[in-house]
Amino acid sequence: MNEYADRLSAAQQLMRAEGVDALCLSVGSDLPYLTGYKAMPLERLTMFVLPAEGEGTMVVPDLEAPRLERKGTPFAVQGWGETDDPIGIVDRLLNGGANLLIGDETWSRFLIELQDANAARSVATASDLMAKMRMVKSPEEIASLRAAAASVDDVVGQLENVRFSGRTERDISRQIIEFTTESGHETMDFWIVASGPNGASPHHEPGDRVIEHGDAVVVDFGGHQNGYASDTTRMFVVGEAPYGFDDAFQVLLRAQIAAVDHVRPGVTAESVDAVARGIISDAGYGDLFIHRTGHGIGMDTHEHPYIVEGNEQVLEPGMAFSVEPGIYTPGEWGMRIEDTVTVTDDGVERLNRTDRVYRIVS
Amino acid sequence: MNEYADRLSAAQQLMRAEGVDALCLSVGSDLPYLTGYKAMPLERLTMFVLPAEGEGTMVVPDLEAPRLERKGTPFAVQGWGETDDPIGIVDRLLNGGANLLIGDETWSRFLIELQDANAARSVATASDLMAKMRMVKSPEEIASLRAAAASVDDVVGQLENVRFSGRTERDISRQIIEFTTESGHETMDFWIVASGPNGASPHHEPGDRVIEHGDAVVVDFGGHQNGYASDTTRMFVVGEAPYGFDDAFQVLLRAQIAAVDHVRPGVTAESVDAVARGIISDAGYGDLFIHRTGHGIGMDTHEHPYIVEGNEQVLEPGMAFSVEPGIYTPGEWGMRIEDTVTVTDDGVERLNRTDRVYRIVS
Repeated sequence: MNEYADRLSAAQQLMRAEGVDALCLSVGSDLPYLTGYKAMPLERLTMFVLPAEGEGTMVVPDLEAPRLERKGTPFAVQGWGETDDPIGIVDRLLNGGANLLIGDETWSRFLIELQDANAARSVATASDLMAKMRMVKSPEEIASLRAAAASVDDVVGQLENVRFSGRTERDISRQIIEFTTESGHETMDFWIVASGPNGASPHHEPGDRVIEHGDAVVVDFGGHQNGYASDTTRMFVVGEAPYGFDDAFQVLLRAQIAAVDHVRPGVTAESVDAVARGIISDAGYGDLFIHRTGHGIGMDTHEHPYIVEGNEQVLEPGMAFSVEPGIYTPGEWGMRIEDTVTVTDDGVERLNRTDRVYRIVS
Repeated sequence: MNEYADRLSAAQQLMRAEGVDALCLSVGSDLPYLTGYKAMPLERLTMFVLPAEGEGTMVVPDLEAPRLERKGTPFAVQGWGETDDPIGIVDRLLNGGANLLIGDETWSRFLIELQDANAARSVATASDLMAKMRMVKSPEEIASLRAAAASVDDVVGQLENVRFSGRTERDISRQIIEFTTESGHETMDFWIVASGPNGASPHHEPGDRVIEHGDAVVVDFGGHQNGYASDTTRMFVVGEAPYGFDDAFQVLLRAQIAAVDHVRPGVTAESVDAVARGIISDAGYGDLFIHRTGHGIGMDTHEHPYIVEGNEQVLEPGMAFSVEPGIYTPGEWGMRIEDTVTVTDDGVERLNRTDRVYRIVS
């Protein structure tokens, strides 16, 4: 039995417990999590059909079959040619099974075709079942997240010696991409450099704004290394902080540290959010903290558990997520501090380990 | 009226003609095609709801609202906060409308939630309606495709002076990424470098294989420039071609040239495939041409019209697609020649203009 075989059996056990006949996975990380194979996000359907008992079948375009690495995972392969009907193949494999789960990110086009092929079918999202499995990471997965975090921490260190003023956000973002790629990441997924008033847009895309003396700059970036995601945010201040920034930053720093320190087995996801939000609100900045406190991280940059009000998920050892409160004043500046952390047997480990204070740069 | 306003009205006209109550678009290129705004491919739902009459509404996470550029496009914006239910908002906007079209690439999770919110709803894919609009490019769109093609053509020219032997596929692919990024592309989407026997896998991912004297190397790459895709394949031979390669290459070259020359208004997509396939089959290589002849290209690298047996779509001026026959001998070598082309008023324009012969490199 290899790791994937273990995961496939665990999934089937959950399926049987919940009366699910088959699990259908296509694009996204659920498929490589269970089988080691990632579907190409193209119009030719790849779909893994896993019955509640017995072997699964990977339905894959013939011309992608040569790139299908088995990695010792036990499943059958059913190729389809350019003029075949892949939905017909999936439908036959489902063998009349009425209760299906389908992967979250599967294209709606394929779901509609599957529903049209058998109107009696009841299809629900595979989200809960897959989250149950993927939320709790193995020691090997945590090691991968730790290594990815160490790489972006190195990049933060390099950025301390970089000149910001007089350069565009885009120029700084290119340097971040270069540093991160050199650090061992196989992909770079996002690179937010949000300076001055742009900092107030949490998902700002780096543009032509020239960074000036007195700007606060939100730097939030991440990618994938060995299949696992990194994600960290640090603040850079050019010369001196803008009006009002220092007071808010002390609050944010306190909130982020307290939220991280609150993490341990047995507390809920929403309680971590509440700790950060409480400190920020008590200081009068509550309306300026406009997003949840964090998101799970693993093979996906955003996955379960979400650290948000209403999520009563109890934290367990092996869960990993970001803790990233922020304060945003439209038209002036924004700030965010983000670490990825993992729940240990009796507390928390910060995977990002750089200082959480802001860096003064030239 | 701007370009997007024109496209929105054209979509609504098609919707009314087909009795569609609303069009719902999320991730993918349909949304930026109609509105200029591209949804982030994340778990927070962005959905544009366009009724058959009147103004559409962009349902967008509050924290992404600041990055929503309007570009003069007429639509309402409805933000949602971290603890709101975006599907509930979409459901209310649909206002009981029974016949919906949903964008192809929309996550199945959101489609299922929409279906669960109103079981009487009939949801079909927006594929046909959007393809009708997007297949025929405007002169400005063709100009963008032409510029993107010119950039990758420049990269092909640069690769002629690169040493292949003694280097890994991955190393060559990195150089292609570097050249293409410098050429003006904003993203690099794929970079196939398939040497020796790896060439027989059409979607091979560049790996650690060291390229040797006597290898044939398939180089197939593309990205996006100004929002439009590039895609070209050229063959490189290190020193001298392997056994059997030259004979097959002459056939492939003839097939690709004949298929391109066949393109004109009034012929079908499948007839272009038939021309390439006929020449390759007549020469005895039919079983080794294991994929369709091409795919449409525009904002997506792969879109309608597909150049494949069974597609009776009649070609019209402004359509753009790849013509890329290949011959693959498992365990030995593979070959493919690919140009993107556009249908003109009376024939065809090759957007890729480099010589289609193979390059001999060191």
